[in-house]
Amino acid sequence: MSSSVVCFRCGERYDDETRVRCACGQPLWFDTPDTDFTFSDDRDRDGMWRYESLLPIERPDGVARAAGGTPLVRSPGLDRAAGCRVYVKDESENPTGAYKDRGSAVAVSHAIEAGADVVGTISYGNMGISTAAHAASLGRECIVLVPDEIPQARLELIAQYEPSIVQVEGDYGALYADGVALSASHPISILVSDAPARISGYKTVVFEIYESLAPNTPDAIALPASSGGFASGVWRGLRDLAALDLLDELPRLYLVQTASADPITRAFDSGATEPTALSPEETEETIAHSIGNPDPPSGARALAAVRETNGAVVSVTDAEIRTAQRRFAVDGGFCVEPAAATPLAGLTRLSERGAIASNEEVVIVPTGTGFKERGTGDVPVSTERTSRSALPELLESLLDAR
Amino acid sequence: MSSSVVCFRCGERYDDETRVRCACGQPLWFDTPDTDFTFSDDRDRDGMWRYESLLPIERPDGVARAAGGTPLVRSPGLDRAAGCRVYVKDESENPTGAYKDRGSAVAVSHAIEAGADVVGTISYGNMGISTAAHAASLGRECIVLVPDEIPQARLELIAQYEPSIVQVEGDYGALYADGVALSASHPISILVSDAPARISGYKTVVFEIYESLAPNTPDAIALPASSGGFASGVWRGLRDLAALDLLDELPRLYLVQTASADPITRAFDSGATEPTALSPEETEETIAHSIGNPDPPSGARALAAVRETNGAVVSVTDAEIRTAQRRFAVDGGFCVEPAAATPLAGLTRLSERGAIASNEEVVIVPTGTGFKERGTGDVPVSTERTSRSALPELLESLLDAR
Repeated sequence: MSSSVVCFRCGERYDDETRVRCACGQPLWFDTPDTDFTFSDDRDRDGMWRYESLLPIERPDGVARAAGGTPLVRSPGLDRAAGCRVYVKDESENPTGAYKDRGSAVAVSHAIEAGADVVGTISYGNMGISTAAHAASLGRECIVLVPDEIPQARLELIAQYEPSIVQVEGDYGALYADGVALSASHPISILVSDAPARISGYKTVVFEIYESLAPNTPDAIALPASSGGFASGVWRGLRDLAALDLLDELPRLYLVQTASADPITRAFDSGATEPTALSPEETEETIAHSIGNPDPPSGARALAAVRETNGAVVSVTDAEIRTAQRRFAVDGGFCVEPAAATPLAGLTRLSERGAIASNEEVVIVPTGTGFKERGTGDVPVSTERTSRSALPELLESLLDAR
Repeated sequence: MSSSVVCFRCGERYDDETRVRCACGQPLWFDTPDTDFTFSDDRDRDGMWRYESLLPIERPDGVARAAGGTPLVRSPGLDRAAGCRVYVKDESENPTGAYKDRGSAVAVSHAIEAGADVVGTISYGNMGISTAAHAASLGRECIVLVPDEIPQARLELIAQYEPSIVQVEGDYGALYADGVALSASHPISILVSDAPARISGYKTVVFEIYESLAPNTPDAIALPASSGGFASGVWRGLRDLAALDLLDELPRLYLVQTASADPITRAFDSGATEPTALSPEETEETIAHSIGNPDPPSGARALAAVRETNGAVVSVTDAEIRTAQRRFAVDGGFCVEPAAATPLAGLTRLSERGAIASNEEVVIVPTGTGFKERGTGDVPVSTERTSRSALPELLESLLDAR
């Protein structure tokens, strides 16, 4: 177990494991723990907890134990759209349907161990749902800060676990700094998107990918990027594996943003080391509502991850996202939310520009289920209609029409 | 690999592995394969496919590989409601959010290997969603037969994978026999709820439960019952383990039905060996729409499973189901659909009547995610509202109010 957090950029260390940001302004994370961890054949099937010795807490009971441990599957149906050999790491198969559970499973328990009476988060979507679920499972109160104009449907998804929900008027992006400050001054731990313990949870997705594919390794990993927290976790996992001598060459990291709010792509394209916050005039509505952070707090770390691994950051339009979401379902059998479809849309672009070869093996991480927003009753569906007696005839015509 | 299916009651064998029912009228299943299978420490993490030697097909690529392999977690928060020590086997963590994926993963590939050009099913819910997803992943056409009056929201969930959807007027229950007959006469395999290959897929849930808890064993397993197909699969799994000398004593099987349509409960209470089909006048609408089959095709087999294991069948009301669904979320952190909450409601009843002791270890199987129908925008949610500047004061009042 680690006992300090460290700045990815300047290397400064802090004993306070709940501290989120370095004095230099960059985000902190846990360094590789000093253990003799290796991939083993043990029968530990507790999802991500088989990597317990690389995490800052011991495995808790309850829904946290159900986090991670998601399938990695070869999905040939998606090869054509991606332009390469696709493996899907299906993060929708988490208890609340999103990779966020890996982070909440670690961070909620970690906050309680560090002395917080109450946990909280700032989210109008998957992170709010996940944090509330994990707090409920541990019998702890939870406060979720949401924007004032949150859709009713999203409120319901968070509210089922019965946290306190606070709708906050004003600049929602500025709440990140408020949350960090309030956690320091009050008996609550507001677990922001890149809290170090969350990043520790996210890194387990990389351990699972490597253990599933061993002795092979993927050429690249593609994921959505918003705050930069998940990308940081993936990079942290790769660095842990390298530090433990379990990995020689890092796979290329491809981060995909929605073109409606893509400060990390803009920074990547301009060669900047950190993103510039976008003004409201520079962002648009997007169907990929789970991503699109105009001022990503771990943006600089995400950029560093991409550059160290010779990857790239690309943006995709809502039309491309819709196409990728359909391909996931119709060619892959996966129901993913729009944000989770972005990596496939990004691979389409990257392959077209020659950045990825058709024989390369690429892991796509769809980060969240589409079931949370499917089934509204608003989408037109075409069907056949028949009586029981006319069914054989209709079936024959359907079979003949193939 | 098996090469025949057998009647659970009369023992008659048939070489046609796709045959669903015995000449005696009862459903068929695969017998325990003749292998030297044992639980092993191998690093096979392909979910249910670590039990490949006990299944009638080899593991396919695609979404089938992502089926099963769900977490089993100790969930102390649910002990009070259940009246015993609860383990949750979270079947919502399947690719389409329901245990049905175990059955579809095996049955769709099995049908294709047996020569079907097209697969299909009869379902207005999870089985239709799952079958369409698995067919899509294998690049096969799929035809889903639904009742004429299916809600639009359900159509959308099935339609995302782009199967042909046929709304059939008339007696929906009678379609089971139509489907079996049409599969015999046409180049389509309509995979009904208790097709033998589906049952083979379902049995893997038991293998996972036993391997997760080893060397301990649960005192009981509680699950919802509708067609009797899932209960048959669980019983088949237990019988396989017993036949392989991996299990001495069978856990008690508790099946829970919705009181709105509970022919298996009625038969259990009356001592009958098979359920009597309920007339439309004997059934009601229920929030547990995924269960409530008035004429369960594997009802007799489900009853036999319960009696052989000294279990029971109980019914629960919609009010009890709502309470259990809330407890799952608020005390456990799990988002489950109403049908999936019934086992917890059933345990409450069984504990109150003294059938289960408080120190007994019981595995609850929530069979499907609640996310498919949560987030409609119709449920009132109470929140606090504040401005950013007033947030510290509001947080203090929330923290003080604890």
